[in-house]
Amino acid sequence: MDILTAAGKAKTASIELSAVDKDTKNNALLKISEKLLENKERIFKANQSDLRRSKEENLDMPLLKRLKFDETKLMDVVKGIKSLIELDEQVGKVLLETELDDGLTLIKESCPIGVIGVVFESRPDALVQIATLCLKSGNSILLKGGSEAIETNKILSELIIEATVKNNIPKGWMFNVESRENVGKMLDLDNYIDLIIPRGSNSFVRYIIDNSKIPVLGHADGICHGYIHKDANIDMAVNVIYDSKTQYVAVCNALETLLVHEDIAEELLPILSVKLSQKNVVIHGCVKTRRLIDCILATEEDWKTEYLDYELSIKVVSDMKEAIDHINTYGSRHTEVIVTENNNQANAFMKLVDSGNVFHNCSTRFSDGFKYGFGAEIGVSTNKIHARGPVGLEGLVIYKYKLFGNGQLVEDYTTGSETFKHRHIK
Amino acid sequence: MDILTAAGKAKTASIELSAVDKDTKNNALLKISEKLLENKERIFKANQSDLRRSKEENLDMPLLKRLKFDETKLMDVVKGIKSLIELDEQVGKVLLETELDDGLTLIKESCPIGVIGVVFESRPDALVQIATLCLKSGNSILLKGGSEAIETNKILSELIIEATVKNNIPKGWMFNVESRENVGKMLDLDNYIDLIIPRGSNSFVRYIIDNSKIPVLGHADGICHGYIHKDANIDMAVNVIYDSKTQYVAVCNALETLLVHEDIAEELLPILSVKLSQKNVVIHGCVKTRRLIDCILATEEDWKTEYLDYELSIKVVSDMKEAIDHINTYGSRHTEVIVTENNNQANAFMKLVDSGNVFHNCSTRFSDGFKYGFGAEIGVSTNKIHARGPVGLEGLVIYKYKLFGNGQLVEDYTTGSETFKHRHIK
Repeated sequence: MDILTAAGKAKTASIELSAVDKDTKNNALLKISEKLLENKERIFKANQSDLRRSKEENLDMPLLKRLKFDETKLMDVVKGIKSLIELDEQVGKVLLETELDDGLTLIKESCPIGVIGVVFESRPDALVQIATLCLKSGNSILLKGGSEAIETNKILSELIIEATVKNNIPKGWMFNVESRENVGKMLDLDNYIDLIIPRGSNSFVRYIIDNSKIPVLGHADGICHGYIHKDANIDMAVNVIYDSKTQYVAVCNALETLLVHEDIAEELLPILSVKLSQKNVVIHGCVKTRRLIDCILATEEDWKTEYLDYELSIKVVSDMKEAIDHINTYGSRHTEVIVTENNNQANAFMKLVDSGNVFHNCSTRFSDGFKYGFGAEIGVSTNKIHARGPVGLEGLVIYKYKLFGNGQLVEDYTTGSETFKHRHIK
Repeated sequence: MDILTAAGKAKTASIELSAVDKDTKNNALLKISEKLLENKERIFKANQSDLRRSKEENLDMPLLKRLKFDETKLMDVVKGIKSLIELDEQVGKVLLETELDDGLTLIKESCPIGVIGVVFESRPDALVQIATLCLKSGNSILLKGGSEAIETNKILSELIIEATVKNNIPKGWMFNVESRENVGKMLDLDNYIDLIIPRGSNSFVRYIIDNSKIPVLGHADGICHGYIHKDANIDMAVNVIYDSKTQYVAVCNALETLLVHEDIAEELLPILSVKLSQKNVVIHGCVKTRRLIDCILATEEDWKTEYLDYELSIKVVSDMKEAIDHINTYGSRHTEVIVTENNNQANAFMKLVDSGNVFHNCSTRFSDGFKYGFGAEIGVSTNKIHARGPVGLEGLVIYKYKLFGNGQLVEDYTTGSETFKHRHIK
């Protein structure tokens, strides 16, 4: 099936799917996990074939690791589906209720967005995760995975489609897009696709954002900052920065730049430098930093760099305003932390830093849907509209206004023979 | 000042403005209305000059009417500001509060979006309205009005900027963009502008949507539908359709297409036709419609047309599915109504029609922020993300996550020495 036909079917299916009740969706989710378990050997075999081919094509080690879909990944996926089933239903929630007049009731009710386009790199478990999130929230999905994972994605899609369509989920709700040329086509289908979710490296996500006519939910960079205020507890500062930087370096919520108030730099930096040397962290420091510790001179480029590695840039600043300006200029609106014992200063920092996640005295690595207790994460968004920060199921729904009357006409309210009462019910 | 410099200043100001308290913003709003009243003769004079020039340039009568800014418009604007002051503060609302663990509290808090770009045609009162909405919600604004209204917009902007900057609103929060070539530049400033709101004709809005890299909040078309189900009350149906079509034809929530179930068409259409002839409504009917009443044969083009005039297309359908498919194919996701005494069928229709506003037994003309009781309307959105239907102040805010800790590290939760409690507070 070509992508245009598939998109049309996905749109039609999305209308029916928007009216499918909670129990039917949850039952279909259960059937997906059963189906995957029953067919695990077929999945592993397809994945082995993808891995073999990708090794021959000299795919990078980290990408090979992400491509792997084994028993552990399957168990994670199945566990994810189980917890997804238990989450609250997001569709049909009454968000607002107003009696505009007697017998004229307005209800703002949550509903699915429609058709979600997902474009992702080599992690096949992301396919199952996002497909099930879309199903739970009543959305159709068009998926385009990386060519490295083509066989794994194919079998996973087939199994999910089989399990769901047999269990009262409208046919056409999900489609696995195969050839690479279809990515460009997909990004142009703004008449069919309501939202694009990209998953992959930052250059990959940036490409999607720059080339899509459709709204994109995601983030390209994660240049996270820490600011050590002059009233920081030194021990806490060292530990928070060490955890933020080194706990897991390859992720978007890891620290990339540290800003240190000049009054505390002399005491803090030597201790921090020793601590970071435990993990051989390479430091790029400004001129003032280099007067206090041994490190490489930071360039303008360093402030814009997401290292995703054991590297950190450090700048000594003369006040909080300089720190905030630096973050709002070079940051990616992802996650930033201030370490200080001064709550007023912390609050000011958290108000003035324009990021989805602003922390006081804790690690940037907490910036994550599961750690926030959302139970599911669609992705992290650095957008300024719709959904920001870690996005749970609520990012896949929107709302419609329903107005229930018994023959009311606007003319009567214009002439004044009737007047609005606007009684707020909920 | 060139637009790039202005956009940079607006961004800087937006950070400061996001932290300005409610009373300061409300006081500045009051000062705007006082300033406009004090300087009304200057405003009217500038507007007279715009009107004179536009008449010489043979601007259409409806546009001239919209361009006019007189005592009545000023009073409306001042009244609007007064009611805006009284609306709830939207910034700083706690939307969610969770204790991730003892002493580690997550708060989801509403905040302004940042910088709003507004592009609008000849209605200068829209300038005041949108600028004050942005101020109330803590956003900076870059405004580009139509060249017809250049002098009126200039004086209005000057007065608003003067009144606000003198009253503790950060300098640079508002900028009036003048030359036409700046529209294109503005639509490319995705590093500075977070959201574009277009106001004007549908072709104008479509141009903005098609040419912007920035998310757009608005609607191009308003092709609203009515569906008369077979169990409709005939009198009610005739009145609701008459009001929806004729109460005010030049607006986006006026009815453009009527779908009638075949079982009721024979009884309904002749009565409706007589009623609509009171306003000389021109009817474009399908073949089946033409067997029952005298009208022009509807073409494929008619189903896609927003007449904005005393014209209506009518199609006889054989069931509700056909009606829903027609709406989801030709509609603009704005407002649709079903007339029926059968509540189950009404509910099914309202679920399956993919529009921001779905009505039962009342006029489509109710689709409006003021009638909904929002007290302010930014515009009507046919988007599927962020905000849909009539958008009030809540469409100009987003949120950030604030996490307050006392030194917590992710490593401790990874090794299991600490565990998340996820206590839901709000």
